[in-house]
Amino acid sequence: MSDYSLSCPIPLADLDTIQMAHGGGGRRMQRLLEQTILPSFHNPILAQRHDSAALKLYNTNGRLAFTSDSYVVRPLFFPGGDIGSLAVNGTINDLAMSGARPLWISAAFILEEGLPMSFLKKIVDSMQQAAEVAGVTIVTGDTKVVDRGKGDGIYITTAGIGAIEHSLIIAPASVLPGDAIILSGDVGRHGIAVMAQREGLEFETPIASDCAPLNYPVQAMLSAGLDIHCLRDLTRGGLAGALVEIAEVSGLGFRIEERFVHVEEPVQGACELLGLDPLYIANEGRFIAFVPQLQAEQTLKLLRRHPLTSDASRIGTVLEEPAGIVSMKNLLGTVRILDMLSGDQLPRIC
Amino acid sequence: MSDYSLSCPIPLADLDTIQMAHGGGGRRMQRLLEQTILPSFHNPILAQRHDSAALKLYNTNGRLAFTSDSYVVRPLFFPGGDIGSLAVNGTINDLAMSGARPLWISAAFILEEGLPMSFLKKIVDSMQQAAEVAGVTIVTGDTKVVDRGKGDGIYITTAGIGAIEHSLIIAPASVLPGDAIILSGDVGRHGIAVMAQREGLEFETPIASDCAPLNYPVQAMLSAGLDIHCLRDLTRGGLAGALVEIAEVSGLGFRIEERFVHVEEPVQGACELLGLDPLYIANEGRFIAFVPQLQAEQTLKLLRRHPLTSDASRIGTVLEEPAGIVSMKNLLGTVRILDMLSGDQLPRIC
Repeated sequence: MSDYSLSCPIPLADLDTIQMAHGGGGRRMQRLLEQTILPSFHNPILAQRHDSAALKLYNTNGRLAFTSDSYVVRPLFFPGGDIGSLAVNGTINDLAMSGARPLWISAAFILEEGLPMSFLKKIVDSMQQAAEVAGVTIVTGDTKVVDRGKGDGIYITTAGIGAIEHSLIIAPASVLPGDAIILSGDVGRHGIAVMAQREGLEFETPIASDCAPLNYPVQAMLSAGLDIHCLRDLTRGGLAGALVEIAEVSGLGFRIEERFVHVEEPVQGACELLGLDPLYIANEGRFIAFVPQLQAEQTLKLLRRHPLTSDASRIGTVLEEPAGIVSMKNLLGTVRILDMLSGDQLPRIC
Repeated sequence: MSDYSLSCPIPLADLDTIQMAHGGGGRRMQRLLEQTILPSFHNPILAQRHDSAALKLYNTNGRLAFTSDSYVVRPLFFPGGDIGSLAVNGTINDLAMSGARPLWISAAFILEEGLPMSFLKKIVDSMQQAAEVAGVTIVTGDTKVVDRGKGDGIYITTAGIGAIEHSLIIAPASVLPGDAIILSGDVGRHGIAVMAQREGLEFETPIASDCAPLNYPVQAMLSAGLDIHCLRDLTRGGLAGALVEIAEVSGLGFRIEERFVHVEEPVQGACELLGLDPLYIANEGRFIAFVPQLQAEQTLKLLRRHPLTSDASRIGTVLEEPAGIVSMKNLLGTVRILDMLSGDQLPRIC
């Protein structure tokens, strides 16, 4: 047996960064888990240290939601969050958009050789905090290390399981003519916050990401017995991208009014300066809901009671026609057709 | 609205590689999904195209297994598999090691700008094929794109859900003194196959990875009513790493005999040439099982009937002491203590 630990001594100066050996399945990886990752995520399920977590769904008749997303945001830390809170909240939100109660999260890390251990520690702490806020548990995970230059510090992939405890079919195909389109809050903050941090831009009023878990407001809507037709969080592609996608799948026409879409003044200013459209900018704590016209007021009242959705507004209505088209009456009173962008105004924001 | 598609025209020559815009949540991403990824994974659940997949567990009393792993293998294609089949089989195997019946897989892709589309197509086809062989469905996923140089073509993270339909506690803590230690087949092939491909080494007899799904042999063991105490697949850290980890958790002593550990001649030759120890080399289709002494023969007979485990052998026994120590009687009759390596002999093999 060749003793790798002796033939490749790791200089003391490097002990505080990620090394290739941390991904090798040996003692160094064991120590990384035991000293840096597991203490943050500490819970009895993870403590089993098995290849997979054994879980039990209660009172759901076996119905569950399952989702996964990778996070490659650059930079790793930005006002209002970091790649860790983003990875946890993003997966929670994807579950919430099915009306599922998020329960369990997995966390798979791709670490770049040389990543300071303090960064990793900060990120896993942030993940744990986000999980606690949303009432979910990080139950399983994985750690891989790639060579220096073959990553961007850290990429995180989270997957999530949630319990579906309602009998609604919350999906684009359930949207009906006459539905009210409700927006949960102001748009554009996450993308601008990340981009500003990345490019070193400074605004008079600092802009923080809206990154937050959406499961509680959705749970409140479900508990109130609202007949939710569709929910969608406004990540890549922004508000406009989400509307266009749902309009196309439902084959209905959406009419919205710009004056009801709240964009905070610093975000609006940054967008004008940079030639960006806030309607297409990614958010990480905003969603749209499609509910029957008759339940629009009740939905708004209910959402406005919750801190994360206190600024909810009805931005438009679903019409029979024109099929698959989203049109917006802008502040000047003219109507503009919203289409999906080809790519994204701002890459690598999640 | 700034029209990104007009301001950044993509040269025709580049249409066949991944561009940043493919990760932007817009039309290009939609087209990537519709033309390259969804046709391979085609199934009704994925076709819902929602933020998360809605699933239903049957007849399991709500018990499920959940796991996730990232795959960063280099190179992407190697004899006996590729990063796609590896990502699917790896997650299936983690579920199987809990005795769970693998049901659903998620696939999250981190694509590097410039990755040839033909590579992606080949990889997703391979994932689908692996999923079909193992009887699982790829139900949800995600696609992110990182800048040229910030990846290695493609990283894949799979998560998986399986149904636990037995009432055993299959875990290191369930191992008992007297248990037989069964090895499912020859060891060392995966790591050597990947390393040889990476380094351009050629052996007289080509070595192919053992990458394969282990759920069927495990299912057969469960169906036969065997009292399985622990299962572990022999990935990073190899056979020795797995044995040491389980010995430490169980607090028992494992005694194995080298003559019962089958290493194919070309693998043995490559290891001698390169100064590697096959006991520490990663496998992707091999596992060890701990069963009561009295069921050892039955287990071997049953496994040997299955093509993936036809070469199963009993390699040792669990003893009361020395606590947490794995010792191996080698071919010369002397006894050697197996420890875990610090890192790995071969990085980036999964």
